[in-house]
This record gives sequence, C-alpha cells and structure tokens, in this order.
Amino acid sequence: MKQTLNLIKIGGNIIDDETKLNRFLKDFAQIPGPKILIHGGGKTVTQISGNLGLETTMVNGLRITDAETLRVVTMVYGGLINKTIVAKLQAEDCNAIGFTGADANLIPAAKRAAGKLDFGYAGDIIPGVIRGEKIAFFLDNCFVPVFAPLTHDKAGSLLNTNADTIASALAIALSGQYETKLYYCFEKNGVLTDLENEDSIIEELTLEKYRSLKHEGLIAKGMLPKLDNAFKALVAGVNSVVICHADAIGKMLIQDKKAGTELVKE
Amino acid sequence: MKQTLNLIKIGGNIIDDETKLNRFLKDFAQIPGPKILIHGGGKTVTQISGNLGLETTMVNGLRITDAETLRVVTMVYGGLINKTIVAKLQAEDCNAIGFTGADANLIPAAKRAAGKLDFGYAGDIIPGVIRGEKIAFFLDNCFVPVFAPLTHDKAGSLLNTNADTIASALAIALSGQYETKLYYCFEKNGVLTDLENEDSIIEELTLEKYRSLKHEGLIAKGMLPKLDNAFKALVAGVNSVVICHADAIGKMLIQDKKAGTELVKE
Repeated sequence: MKQTLNLIKIGGNIIDDETKLNRFLKDFAQIPGPKILIHGGGKTVTQISGNLGLETTMVNGLRITDAETLRVVTMVYGGLINKTIVAKLQAEDCNAIGFTGADANLIPAAKRAAGKLDFGYAGDIIPGVIRGEKIAFFLDNCFVPVFAPLTHDKAGSLLNTNADTIASALAIALSGQYETKLYYCFEKNGVLTDLENEDSIIEELTLEKYRSLKHEGLIAKGMLPKLDNAFKALVAGVNSVVICHADAIGKMLIQDKKAGTELVKE
Repeated sequence: MKQTLNLIKIGGNIIDDETKLNRFLKDFAQIPGPKILIHGGGKTVTQISGNLGLETTMVNGLRITDAETLRVVTMVYGGLINKTIVAKLQAEDCNAIGFTGADANLIPAAKRAAGKLDFGYAGDIIPGVIRGEKIAFFLDNCFVPVFAPLTHDKAGSLLNTNADTIASALAIALSGQYETKLYYCFEKNGVLTDLENEDSIIEELTLEKYRSLKHEGLIAKGMLPKLDNAFKALVAGVNSVVICHADAIGKMLIQDKKAGTELVKE
C-alpha cells in the first residue's frame, strides 16, 4: 500500500492575515506523515508594486508580469512569504525547506506565448515534466517542501505561475509514488451554493454537477480556476481533492473528521 | 583522503552588475566537485528601502535591521538575489538550490543583544551550532547550495547575518567532512598594499603580518571584517582561504592557477 501524501495549498487571504497564518501553520506543523505546502501571493505584491511606482494589471485574476513585476514577485513570493513561512514552521519543529520551481530544477515551465494578450513572465507547467521522484527524495528524507508560486524556464529566467496550478501539478506528479490527497484551503467553508451563507456547502461535487453549476453561472468567478485545477488533478489520478477553510485543516488531518467540499469523479 | 569542497563568497559589487554576475556564474557552474556559493547583498536593499520610504542606517558596515528592514532583506536577499542566481545556475546545468539559514534549519543563530547600539534583527552564529553533516547531505546528493545572508532564531524570526561570516562558519562546520577551501571574491585582485594599484597584491598574508598592517592602518577599513572572518576560518581548521577577484575564480578552480591573496597561519 502506498503512503499517504498530503498537499495543501493556502491562498492570499490567509497569508495576508498574520493571526490566521500562524494558526494555520501551527495546525500544518502537526499533520503526521509526508506533506507539502504550496502558498499563493496575497496582497503584498500589489502593495509593494504600488509603493515602488509600478502599475498592477490583472486579467481574469492573472497578473501581467513584466520584467519589473517579475522582480517584485520573486522578492515577495520567493523571499518574504516563502521564507517567513519556513521560519515559522521551523519554530514549530516542522522541518520546512522553501522552494521555487528553479531550486533543484523541481518545476521547469514554459513562458506563455503572447497571443492577444502578453502575460509577460508567466510560466505554464508542461504536463508530465515534473519528476515526482525528485520531490519524493526530499519527502523520503523527512523534509517538508514549501513551494512559492514561481517556476523557471531553464534558460535563466524565473516565471510567475499560479499557485493552484502548481499544487495540482505537484499532486499529479507524485500520484505514482504516493496516495495523494490535495487540499485547497481558503477563507470559505467550501464550495457554496450561496456565497452569503457559509453553511450552504456542497459536500460532494461531481464533475457533471460542476459543469452544470458553471453553465448556470452559479459558481463564483474566482472559484473557476481553482476548481478547474482541482478537477484536473482528480481526473489525472490524484486520490482525493478537497476545497475547504484553512481553519478546517487540523480537524480533517489531525482529528480525521470531514469538512469542506470533496470533489468526486462521478 | 577527504574530498575537496570549494566554498565561494561573492559580494555586492558583483551582484549589482549583471554582466559581472553572469560571467562569474558561468565560471562557478564549471567548477568540478562539491561546491557552495554564499552571496552578499549589494545595493538593491538600500535602493528598495529608499523607494519604500525606509531609512538605511549602517554602523561600521553593518545594517541596522528593524522589523521593516527585515522584510526588505528577506525579500531581496532570500528572494530576488538568491532565486535569480539559482535560475541562472540552473540554466548552466548547475544543480543549484537556494537556502536561507531557516531552510531545513541549516543555520540557527542568536539575535544580537542590544548594547549601546541595537542592531535589531541581526543574527550571530553560535560557534559549533551548524551541523556540517546536514549540509554535506545536500552535497553528497549532488546539489549545489546557494546561501543568502539570512539566518533564523528557531523561534519564528529570520535574522540578517553578514555573508562573510556565513561563508566562514559554513567552511568551519564542513572542515570535518571535507578538505575545505574558502574563497572570498570581490572587485579587487586581492589584499593590496596600495589601493590605487591593482598589482600591489600581497600574495601570502600571515596572521602576524595582518596584525601589523592592521595596527599601522594599512588595510582598508572595509576589508577588516572580511579578513577577520577569513583568519577565523583558517585558525579553526579550514584548509585554505583566498581573497581574490571574482574574475579569477575560473583561472584558479578550473585552470588550477594561482591568484589573489592566500592567507597563511605562520
């Protein structure tokens, strides 16, 4: 039987709030067995870009990353957020090690070709290109990888890559070696039928139901890339995918209780 | 016989100049055998601090690191400089992996106690606390560690630590496992008797001669912490310590020729 690997993605809303982040990291540190943390960006990049006089342009939730913005995301994602999380986890005796996709060439990617829109230094992960055994090496040696949302082109440039996509791609790449469980943590209790009602959680979401809710416009726009990545992982062999509140991670992975929305194939 | 480990420290002057940095990294990538790169900070922190409206206070070449400045050094050292170097080395097929002292708890340190002056989040490495075998693990698995000048207090906070000190402490910690050779690379040809004359290199500098030159005020002030760290390494068992120009690293470590100033005990 394969060992279980928990991959947990946390988004900007938790990162931006030190109390929430500390609470989450305390829980994360206690999760037994091999685990990986993937973090998003939060508002700091936009703030610091503004302070440095750079304009932020977002298209469908994606940041246009020109050369100057790449410097800022490298600083904030790869430095400030990633290393702050690593230091906090080390204080909890969790043997964290911070990575971008450039480190040890763990996540090579391709710079997105400019079409109607030029996203600049945005990186797309080529399916099948992440070598799971390279990441398993760190897990087998009891390290806890913490990934920043940055990849590289193997030609000397870092690239800005969506953290949801990185989480999904890592879970897929490691599903050969492990029983992989992927958790997308954010500030809501799960996928909700009514955004105003935190109790309106869809406990099980099938791909079919997702397509129909999407078609009817009943899924919040910001959830679409997350759910697309989440279903992609499930279809590609990841054993379990859950969308949940960051506060629920301890309940689920330490106390072994249910929470959030579980995605199911059929 | 022990295997040779080359530890190379590069300073701000090389980091601030992309052409010089690229040339150095191309040479560094070709050095055979286990190796470690330690980088300093450069002017970017002062520039970005300025753009963010923070004042920079330096005392004897040391930066006063308040909470806001710690955020900036974490961004710039741990993110921008470290990950840019890692991505460039990966493009040269050098299997670089970027570290701060918090990653895998490689360099725990103590926050400097406030005396007459409060240096803020400055970290001093406690002698004997770096476990060489933890770093040797990465070297044995063919990774090339790239260290940013950051340590941590194992209580959740990163700390700003001088890169020369980190280089010296790493070389000492690894001198049990390896024949350690430490190179301090900068923009001069070595320790000079006349700062205006790049040919006035002291080829061999004994501790005694250093003390007498220091006493006579004939060593440039900026060189003192570097040389103090360098001699500390030599006395503590590092096999060879050289102060040289960044351009000379290929000549020395690929072509096996002499350059710079070699420190000698007697």
